[in-house]
Amino acid sequence: MMLSAFACTHRVTYSECTVGNHVYYSRYLDILEEARGEFFRHLGKPLLALQAADFAFPVLECRLKYHAPARYDDVLQVQVWLTFAKGVRLNFAYRVAGADGKQVLEGETFHCCTNLSEKPKRLPEDLIQLLKPHLQPQPERLN
Amino acid sequence: MMLSAFACTHRVTYSECTVGNHVYYSRYLDILEEARGEFFRHLGKPLLALQAADFAFPVLECRLKYHAPARYDDVLQVQVWLTFAKGVRLNFAYRVAGADGKQVLEGETFHCCTNLSEKPKRLPEDLIQLLKPHLQPQPERLN
Amino acid sequence: MMLSAFACTHRVTYSECTVGNHVYYSRYLDILEEARGEFFRHLGKPLLALQAADFAFPVLECRLKYHAPARYDDVLQVQVWLTFAKGVRLNFAYRVAGADGKQVLEGETFHCCTNLSEKPKRLPEDLIQLLKPHLQPQPERLN
Amino acid sequence: MMLSAFACTHRVTYSECTVGNHVYYSRYLDILEEARGEFFRHLGKPLLALQAADFAFPVLECRLKYHAPARYDDVLQVQVWLTFAKGVRLNFAYRVAGADGKQVLEGETFHCCTNLSEKPKRLPEDLIQLLKPHLQPQPERLN
Repeated sequence: MMLSAFACTHRVTYSECTVGNHVYYSRYLDILEEARGEFFRHLGKPLLALQAADFAFPVLECRLKYHAPARYDDVLQVQVWLTFAKGVRLNFAYRVAGADGKQVLEGETFHCCTNLSEKPKRLPEDLIQLLKPHLQPQPERLN
Repeated sequence: MMLSAFACTHRVTYSECTVGNHVYYSRYLDILEEARGEFFRHLGKPLLALQAADFAFPVLECRLKYHAPARYDDVLQVQVWLTFAKGVRLNFAYRVAGADGKQVLEGETFHCCTNLSEKPKRLPEDLIQLLKPHLQPQPERLN
Repeated sequence: MMLSAFACTHRVTYSECTVGNHVYYSRYLDILEEARGEFFRHLGKPLLALQAADFAFPVLECRLKYHAPARYDDVLQVQVWLTFAKGVRLNFAYRVAGADGKQVLEGETFHCCTNLSEKPKRLPEDLIQLLKPHLQPQPERLN
Repeated sequence: MMLSAFACTHRVTYSECTVGNHVYYSRYLDILEEARGEFFRHLGKPLLALQAADFAFPVLECRLKYHAPARYDDVLQVQVWLTFAKGVRLNFAYRVAGADGKQVLEGETFHCCTNLSEKPKRLPEDLIQLLKPHLQPQPERLN
């Protein structure tokens, strides 16, 4: 049971919707990236600063479960937390809900920590310390 | 071991790339949609005709494994096949490779068959017959 | 000389950037759409409510001047105002600047007012009244 | 009157469409980029080779006129030609039509020739020679 997680909001635009008036299935990954960016800023380590220090976090894998369509102008609540952060690996989990609390999407993204030349590199110790309070190992996998 | 699968190609544009000169992680879902569209056309049942007959295939779940970055101007080979097609469910698997055969991405998307009002609806029998030769049940899950 | 205009902010994500680390040239139109949406909400007439009342504003023409590249994580200031609003036509102008005030983009978009079946339809009188304070006829065209 | 122009095709996907079932207004710029890429390849000078030789062509300005909506699965014909190519400047014009010949969009994009550090740089003489047959100075501006 999750007690707290970093959360931010996102308002759906026409550019994110497709035929049938719902958010196109790939756009959620854009929204999750936006939320990860806000999460790192909230930690006091914006990705831009990490990039300047020669760290990048390319995605190795992602899994999304679409529970209900989001529509134009919906204000989405995006929760972000960590399920793993050790060595060269960093896994995030997400929950996206509508303003009414209706579950829209669950997701996981698995990342590698690398330098800007795409070589794996251990997560810096100070980042691991900042990430710890947000770590909630997944009791059961999404599937 | 897969003997044959429907395949099409996609050339990477700048609009699909991000900082660091690689395809942005969500754009692969756009490329897989393009490939599914070509696959249905190849079957003789374009999605537009299915839509006109009140069928849609919203995505319930997707899983992507990123093996190597694709770059601007790469010509990607996208293979598409089915792992399940029965009742109201339709599952696709994909393999994306560079022109040199290097594996770029493996993916799965799980769909529901619905009407245009988003109500589940059985796959039409003639479509199931057309899909059969492309069905390769997954021996092991991606993960 | 413009004394005041509706303004909102937008933080640049990786999904909007391309090779060379700058915002891809088409993404500014997505950002301008987001700003128009916020502008209509600010007026008390969100586009969703106008859509429910059978109004749409398809774009007839757009012009963008790119002054300087915006980069990942930049916080853009987007100013929106009107240059024309009469009959079935609605023209917007925009100025996008970096957090430091550096000019990034100037734009104009020309819209038609239509019903949801894409037939032209006069702007509703109450909307025209709300738009008036934001009307600044262009003394000189962008070009 | 234009006698000939480089042309390529583009099939519209769901990822390019928005609410109301038409191509979202910014996606045409993605399609024009794809067409410019094909045009340079056709000349024997792919943009990737020019990039390797330290040339980039950032956009300074663009103008689009939307004549009719393109829909999902439409096969668009995209014509590309040059209206200016001299010194550090390169201007393109475009015409996009449906498979039935119906005009969808007219566009212009104005580019600067730069090095990869975004400093202006003269167009290479061999490129100017290759571009010449595609040069059709605009008798009248789009507006």
